[in-house]
Amino acid sequence: MISIEQAIDEAMRYARTFLPEGKVATYIPELAHGDPGQLGVCLITKDGTVYHDGDWQQEFTIQSISKTICLIFALQTAGYEKVFSKVGVEPTGDAFNSIVKLETKTLHPLNPMINAGAIATASCCMDLEDPFGAFMDLTRRLCGRESIQLNESVYLSEKKSGMRNRSMAYLMQSDNILECDAELALDLYFRMCSVSVTTEDLARYAVVLANDGVDPATGERLVENWIVRIVKTLMVTCGMYDGSGEFAMKVGIPAKSGVGGGIMASVEDRMGIAAFGPALDAKGNSVGAYRVLEYLSQALRLHYFAGKDL
Amino acid sequence: MISIEQAIDEAMRYARTFLPEGKVATYIPELAHGDPGQLGVCLITKDGTVYHDGDWQQEFTIQSISKTICLIFALQTAGYEKVFSKVGVEPTGDAFNSIVKLETKTLHPLNPMINAGAIATASCCMDLEDPFGAFMDLTRRLCGRESIQLNESVYLSEKKSGMRNRSMAYLMQSDNILECDAELALDLYFRMCSVSVTTEDLARYAVVLANDGVDPATGERLVENWIVRIVKTLMVTCGMYDGSGEFAMKVGIPAKSGVGGGIMASVEDRMGIAAFGPALDAKGNSVGAYRVLEYLSQALRLHYFAGKDL
Amino acid sequence: MISIEQAIDEAMRYARTFLPEGKVATYIPELAHGDPGQLGVCLITKDGTVYHDGDWQQEFTIQSISKTICLIFALQTAGYEKVFSKVGVEPTGDAFNSIVKLETKTLHPLNPMINAGAIATASCCMDLEDPFGAFMDLTRRLCGRESIQLNESVYLSEKKSGMRNRSMAYLMQSDNILECDAELALDLYFRMCSVSVTTEDLARYAVVLANDGVDPATGERLVENWIVRIVKTLMVTCGMYDGSGEFAMKVGIPAKSGVGGGIMASVEDRMGIAAFGPALDAKGNSVGAYRVLEYLSQALRLHYFAGKDL
Amino acid sequence: MISIEQAIDEAMRYARTFLPEGKVATYIPELAHGDPGQLGVCLITKDGTVYHDGDWQQEFTIQSISKTICLIFALQTAGYEKVFSKVGVEPTGDAFNSIVKLETKTLHPLNPMINAGAIATASCCMDLEDPFGAFMDLTRRLCGRESIQLNESVYLSEKKSGMRNRSMAYLMQSDNILECDAELALDLYFRMCSVSVTTEDLARYAVVLANDGVDPATGERLVENWIVRIVKTLMVTCGMYDGSGEFAMKVGIPAKSGVGGGIMASVEDRMGIAAFGPALDAKGNSVGAYRVLEYLSQALRLHYFAGKDL
Repeated sequence: MISIEQAIDEAMRYARTFLPEGKVATYIPELAHGDPGQLGVCLITKDGTVYHDGDWQQEFTIQSISKTICLIFALQTAGYEKVFSKVGVEPTGDAFNSIVKLETKTLHPLNPMINAGAIATASCCMDLEDPFGAFMDLTRRLCGRESIQLNESVYLSEKKSGMRNRSMAYLMQSDNILECDAELALDLYFRMCSVSVTTEDLARYAVVLANDGVDPATGERLVENWIVRIVKTLMVTCGMYDGSGEFAMKVGIPAKSGVGGGIMASVEDRMGIAAFGPALDAKGNSVGAYRVLEYLSQALRLHYFAGKDL
Repeated sequence: MISIEQAIDEAMRYARTFLPEGKVATYIPELAHGDPGQLGVCLITKDGTVYHDGDWQQEFTIQSISKTICLIFALQTAGYEKVFSKVGVEPTGDAFNSIVKLETKTLHPLNPMINAGAIATASCCMDLEDPFGAFMDLTRRLCGRESIQLNESVYLSEKKSGMRNRSMAYLMQSDNILECDAELALDLYFRMCSVSVTTEDLARYAVVLANDGVDPATGERLVENWIVRIVKTLMVTCGMYDGSGEFAMKVGIPAKSGVGGGIMASVEDRMGIAAFGPALDAKGNSVGAYRVLEYLSQALRLHYFAGKDL
Repeated sequence: MISIEQAIDEAMRYARTFLPEGKVATYIPELAHGDPGQLGVCLITKDGTVYHDGDWQQEFTIQSISKTICLIFALQTAGYEKVFSKVGVEPTGDAFNSIVKLETKTLHPLNPMINAGAIATASCCMDLEDPFGAFMDLTRRLCGRESIQLNESVYLSEKKSGMRNRSMAYLMQSDNILECDAELALDLYFRMCSVSVTTEDLARYAVVLANDGVDPATGERLVENWIVRIVKTLMVTCGMYDGSGEFAMKVGIPAKSGVGGGIMASVEDRMGIAAFGPALDAKGNSVGAYRVLEYLSQALRLHYFAGKDL
Repeated sequence: MISIEQAIDEAMRYARTFLPEGKVATYIPELAHGDPGQLGVCLITKDGTVYHDGDWQQEFTIQSISKTICLIFALQTAGYEKVFSKVGVEPTGDAFNSIVKLETKTLHPLNPMINAGAIATASCCMDLEDPFGAFMDLTRRLCGRESIQLNESVYLSEKKSGMRNRSMAYLMQSDNILECDAELALDLYFRMCSVSVTTEDLARYAVVLANDGVDPATGERLVENWIVRIVKTLMVTCGMYDGSGEFAMKVGIPAKSGVGGGIMASVEDRMGIAAFGPALDAKGNSVGAYRVLEYLSQALRLHYFAGKDL
């Protein structure tokens, strides 16, 4: 089998050829400034070796990848019963910002990885004195960087333009699903989405999940085992928007993507990977990051059902 | 950790307490004769050891579990391109017999594990001279039993009463998705669902999938590696109807369930399990078989994200 | 006010300019032979005067206009209670061949003017020895022409190609809404749609409805008063597919359209009008016939809320 | 035929027997104070004779009946093109507060008589300096009472609790359908719904519409003919929520209902009627007011297709 260095090198070259197919997200005005030609990757193995290439140090907003941390946060602070009384665990087959199932299928959002579900999940954490402060503490611990900050201008841009999320939140408030006022839950949600990270941050977070919630560097447990299992399972079934099924088939790593251009992926008991590229496909997944992961999965046999011969 | 024998013994006792919650399927008249008190399990490890308990030798119809064999069959005979031009790979969040997404979301059925998707998949195999004969050959090889037969009365009952499946098939024919006339595809589909099996048959099939498509007893490859990967991935995301997400979270084994009362599950590189009990929950999954698998997953740490401590 | 002759003359000239916007229906193969340049109109006043222009003697298939006769037929033979236990009276806002509300809103079709509703309505008449024969008798009486016949080749074409209608019928059979097997109801439905008529036939039928169900020539009551009221009301709210609201606003005459190119319209207590032109708009309404009626409504003040000054 | 006095007397007695079937609206907290035993009616003929009975002088909030005045207001101030670029004219078959079609069928609300459509319609009037003041002027002129006022506590209650309307408004803002910010359009909408009226006010308004927009007392034209035609047509097809089709069949008068318990109805060229009763049926229509109108329609032959013999 080829080395990780070589696999990364080939994956980056392979992925770059797809970048012209993607488009930078424009529905959040601040995201439109992204450079569609950027591509970066960081891979951290369980033994602590760090590999990286391209724009791996570029900061970008975490966006929907924060939904996984939000879920950890809510399960830790509000508990299993409360969270899953608000939101289900089933994949939807609909787009991440779809409203229709809230009316026709079930009042509760189908899972915490779609926007409505993450807003409902966030609403469970409002008993804390400073919910966003506590969320940031957790994020910094998981990513292993104290200096992680909110991108204020993206946050304000989302808050001002996020009418569709607002629509979902009020529909859920109308159906008594939120634990607080819609605007409060939305504000926390918009802040969570606007945290600024690098691929190294996300790769560190990913390797913690890959290592069952224990920081492999320090041996410290950061996330409870049962929570890690829930989060990784939802990454498998719902992590890539309405392209989750295809990603599971072709790549086969628990992963979560964000419209900021990042994808983080946890290879069970082996490594964490994060890739970044602002050019997105029609479903909101980074074209370049997707292809990097697809290539690495094949070259390094990372699919959970990789089997014996490829 | 406890022994497999002991785990099975406890799992059966645990599962029996839930049987009164379920109901035998009645929408196919012939299935209504099932005994809701029955429960059986068979577990076969990669090294060939067979464990069993309860009504493990009871014959029952395979029903939706045949969708996995149908997919293998179609991928082997018609190829990847043709099959996935007819059907997608995304979970739906809707019930197994839902029609609505065929009209509102996409003309193509979202995946091969729902009824519409399996009918479309079956329609790809019509170039063969005797499609059902070839399907039976494959089924017998996968289950390791030459004497597997069609349950003729269930087949006729389904064919006569399957109006909702008929509705789906004609809608797909109207949208030019089927490769043949609706009634032809339906006839093959109804036959596939009406094959009579035992838990031992399905456990043998499951261990072949767990072993990457290779029969662990003979070393013979029965299914191509890339096909096994697709099938197991779809079992994870769509194998348990609209309860797939919850099963993935709680049990975490690629599995497929059928309204005949069976569930088969493949524990990667370790074992195949099949359980059977005709009493079903509201989503169409066997109450007893589900609980057997839930218990075994915890006791034997079979969840794909079991981690280090439970 | 201008004379009826002059209004018809101007209406035809006005309507012809819109013909290039339309397309002949192709989803029923036999209909594709229609000449998109044809346009005809016939207008019969309550006192029996007949006006006509263009291709008024051209035979065409009645298609969905038969839904009004089917409803009269079912109400006469099966009665109010039975018919409206199968089908509602609400407009839908969906296309005439939509399936989605059958699954998501209510099992029963929303009204008898959409395909699903007409199939359900037709299924109520199966206790008769020769349902289609009786339907033809009624049609001939209403249109005042003994020689009206089935267009056999259109009927066979519809029966062979009507997969979407078949899908609806089986879904309704699955939900126990039909009074007979799906294929029986479909066969009657396809025959009803394939009756061959002229604008004069339909104008005679329309003036009977305008005259409260009494043939103005003979004074004979052909349809009971309460049935006429139901039929005309449904023509107002649902007669022009999902363009019914716009037609009610702009034209304001109870009317029913068919994809064969015909529209018939009953001006309360005054006249019956039928127009014909095979070129259809996107909703399935004849472009030319629609415009003829629009012009006549304005010129002759036929809108039910025409008021005092235009 | 019986006299109007007698018909009213009998209608009230008939309607009272149905009151126990209804329930006072509770989704707006302030409305829950309504007395379900109340029932009132006022009928004003074109020649100015006023008939009344029961709680005809009781003030109640106009609620959705304001949608008709809002449409007149928007057509007068913003014009046909602008209004109907925001909202359609088709009936929906869905409940008045349904969101699903905004996502699945068309971004634009289907008609101005459902909540989403009225909010979009209201948004067209924001260029005025004091939109609500101008709306009140129009309302007072149409109802012939200078002292008509806003019910401040109902307005505040709706504004505080109207989360579902808020959800719709933000979804439309997200899709660029509103002409102003969601909260601005909502505020005007909530105010419009909270105007306090009596049955006499609404009967005066109804007779103006029945008389083609001309006040029969003064001969003054209050609403343009083309606008009256549009409003009355929409009252026919969409005026009674998702019970509009049934009302059209059974009662057959252009009418508009509100969850405050009022229904107003315009009998073409003859009279205006308003009835009031806070007990509502499942679709949001006043049980008592509906039955009063049903009885009057039969007794006085008010159905637009009443015909010759009943």
